[in-house]
Amino acid sequence: MKTIRVGLIGAGTVGLGVLKILKEEASSLEKELRIRVQVHSICSRSLEKLHSVRKDFPEAIITDDFRTVAGNPDIDVILELVGGVDVAEKILLSSLKAKQTVITANKALLSQKGESIYKLAEENGTEIGFEAAVGGAIPVIRVIRNCLSGDNILGLYGILNGTTNFILSKMEREHLDYGQALVLAQKAGFAEADPSFDVEGIDTAHKISIIGSLAFKEKIPLQSITVEGITKITRLDIQFAAELGYRIKLLGLVRKLDGKVEARVQPVMIPKHHAFASVMDETNAIYYKAAFAGPGLLMGKGAGSLPTASAVVSDLLYYGARRDTQPISEKNRFSAAEISEANQTEARYYLRFNTVDKPGVLAEIAKVLGSNSVSISSVRQNESDSEPVEVVVVTHPCSESSIQTSLARIDSLEIILEPSIAIRLEDKL
Amino acid sequence: MKTIRVGLIGAGTVGLGVLKILKEEASSLEKELRIRVQVHSICSRSLEKLHSVRKDFPEAIITDDFRTVAGNPDIDVILELVGGVDVAEKILLSSLKAKQTVITANKALLSQKGESIYKLAEENGTEIGFEAAVGGAIPVIRVIRNCLSGDNILGLYGILNGTTNFILSKMEREHLDYGQALVLAQKAGFAEADPSFDVEGIDTAHKISIIGSLAFKEKIPLQSITVEGITKITRLDIQFAAELGYRIKLLGLVRKLDGKVEARVQPVMIPKHHAFASVMDETNAIYYKAAFAGPGLLMGKGAGSLPTASAVVSDLLYYGARRDTQPISEKNRFSAAEISEANQTEARYYLRFNTVDKPGVLAEIAKVLGSNSVSISSVRQNESDSEPVEVVVVTHPCSESSIQTSLARIDSLEIILEPSIAIRLEDKL
Repeated sequence: MKTIRVGLIGAGTVGLGVLKILKEEASSLEKELRIRVQVHSICSRSLEKLHSVRKDFPEAIITDDFRTVAGNPDIDVILELVGGVDVAEKILLSSLKAKQTVITANKALLSQKGESIYKLAEENGTEIGFEAAVGGAIPVIRVIRNCLSGDNILGLYGILNGTTNFILSKMEREHLDYGQALVLAQKAGFAEADPSFDVEGIDTAHKISIIGSLAFKEKIPLQSITVEGITKITRLDIQFAAELGYRIKLLGLVRKLDGKVEARVQPVMIPKHHAFASVMDETNAIYYKAAFAGPGLLMGKGAGSLPTASAVVSDLLYYGARRDTQPISEKNRFSAAEISEANQTEARYYLRFNTVDKPGVLAEIAKVLGSNSVSISSVRQNESDSEPVEVVVVTHPCSESSIQTSLARIDSLEIILEPSIAIRLEDKL
Repeated sequence: MKTIRVGLIGAGTVGLGVLKILKEEASSLEKELRIRVQVHSICSRSLEKLHSVRKDFPEAIITDDFRTVAGNPDIDVILELVGGVDVAEKILLSSLKAKQTVITANKALLSQKGESIYKLAEENGTEIGFEAAVGGAIPVIRVIRNCLSGDNILGLYGILNGTTNFILSKMEREHLDYGQALVLAQKAGFAEADPSFDVEGIDTAHKISIIGSLAFKEKIPLQSITVEGITKITRLDIQFAAELGYRIKLLGLVRKLDGKVEARVQPVMIPKHHAFASVMDETNAIYYKAAFAGPGLLMGKGAGSLPTASAVVSDLLYYGARRDTQPISEKNRFSAAEISEANQTEARYYLRFNTVDKPGVLAEIAKVLGSNSVSISSVRQNESDSEPVEVVVVTHPCSESSIQTSLARIDSLEIILEPSIAIRLEDKL
């Protein structure tokens, strides 16, 4: 029987979930894995949250001072579950300097301060587990590290933000506009009062930065990722997508082409028959392409107390069991990737133009598209008695730059009332 | 740099795939994982197959005698890729007695002789990796072992046989009968000349036995699994399923209810909006439900040279890196599970009756169903000028036993021309 002495810092929704699992599964962990998890200390700023925890872990030290936990030589593994950057960074630095193993769900911290944290871990010969930081209960990090270790990952494609996927699902099912669906997401607890971190794609970019770096073993900095959120998507786009046999998803992708890395977060249209299109509500998924394993999909709960806690506990057991026996072999620090300037692959595009109602509108749009080598595959214009008129064009495969150039020109025309929308069709996913 | 000395036995499709990966990825394994895989010996009964391999691995010993490889003290890890049971068992026994780590893709061997093999490995303090034995490139074993280790798995549901899934997909897309689609699968190399191992569900049962035992840490013997294949499924059933919003899949499932294990392989109807319904052609998938992580899905290539080889190489790296450092902690031997006698959960059923064309047929069928407490939700009978008439009934939720009793009675009626078909609707998956 191996004993792992654990210090848990942060008794929010994930922290309390971890304690629940450790209590309920203690005897099966001892019986099946021959591991005893001894909760040495539990730390929270608000001690009243820990009232019910005291009786479940009568031997644990309850404290509101993380300094008595992080770096405490009687503790092997620190679970950093406070979130945010400043205090969490202090906790990690103290823990790693004391050669404690650290498990964290803190993607913001890792994508902003990862470099110095990983370096400190290396210098102190200890490890950091962060499965819970990306995709909640989906074991994407373990799959990249251990299951595709001998393979050559060509690309990762993720629906990694539950809030935006919930909003897009609501918009489709209940025929809502973005603003209405956002309010529902806020009421359901899926969106913050200020939702910009989620809906602008920043959260997805954090996650893409973390898993992309691990997959390619090249550093993909946050600022190298082209990011576009879902705030411009309307009920009309969702409806047109459905008519065309597609579903709109906020996709984070990172892939390699000719040695260069393309990293983007943007709303795209996924064919309805693709498994990715069945990822609804707050569910997350990662689709990968590997040179030998081929394509694969991982899908599951991307957030929530118990799903995230399950990933934290799995890291705790994995790294806890390795501690003191297995030489440190996991790399987290990489040299910088060469980032490709723009999207190099051609694709079909959905374009929506909000126009005045007068003759010649379509001709003007078509002329600009044609002069930029954008060939039209189909056009839809629903019957309407009043302005604005919505004109939808689906193109043949063309480059993103030709679309951008065309739209800049078209949006300067007098016939256009609102900025035009372009959404990529991911036919080859 | 750690060196792993490997002996590969069996140069068929998977073995040659492994050698291809080891050659192409050698430098990145050294650079990124700091692991050198030294191919010490390559063994094949037909040495001519190894002609092109000789120049790729000039330092490897090429042999047709496995006894110089299995048990050779200069080799750390044996890759057993010969398939079949007899020779493979000899290889494993020699290797394990010599404390070699063994990696195998041999599900037949493990599900038939696993108990004595695992025991021998334990006694010799060595490990066996068999990720490639279930679901090809899908990392289901690693996910059960390492990612859901602190969780409590409630059920596993698998589309685990590429041949049957290919046949069912062909039947649907090309409106074929079972026999026609089987011929196509044979021509495409997806089905054997004698396809019974696949189409009767036995292959899926082997896999369910292996992953079910690991998930519940209770032994689920092959003979305790209720198995039904796809040979009775007709083009009509596929078509009716589509009209009802379902897709027919050969599902292997193992789940726990009130401490008892239910283990079955049978064709079922999956709602079309479920991600499982998008698993087409030879693709495999495993859907799991865990107490804390919630539901999750793993999908990917279930067979083929390179996908299977990718899983073998990932095991080779995982167990090779642990060898000599990590104490043996993975359990493969379990006490027997308590198997539940029959399906205890209620479900809706699709029933198809092949009947004579005369008045009163539906009344007779409905009467038997009613007397067995099977309540009818909907009935379809397509217009027809000639016998037989196909009557399709969808029931309200009821027990499997009430369906079995009803069908036994109905099939004895004179109005029935062929044995009736019952397919479970997996609405709650």
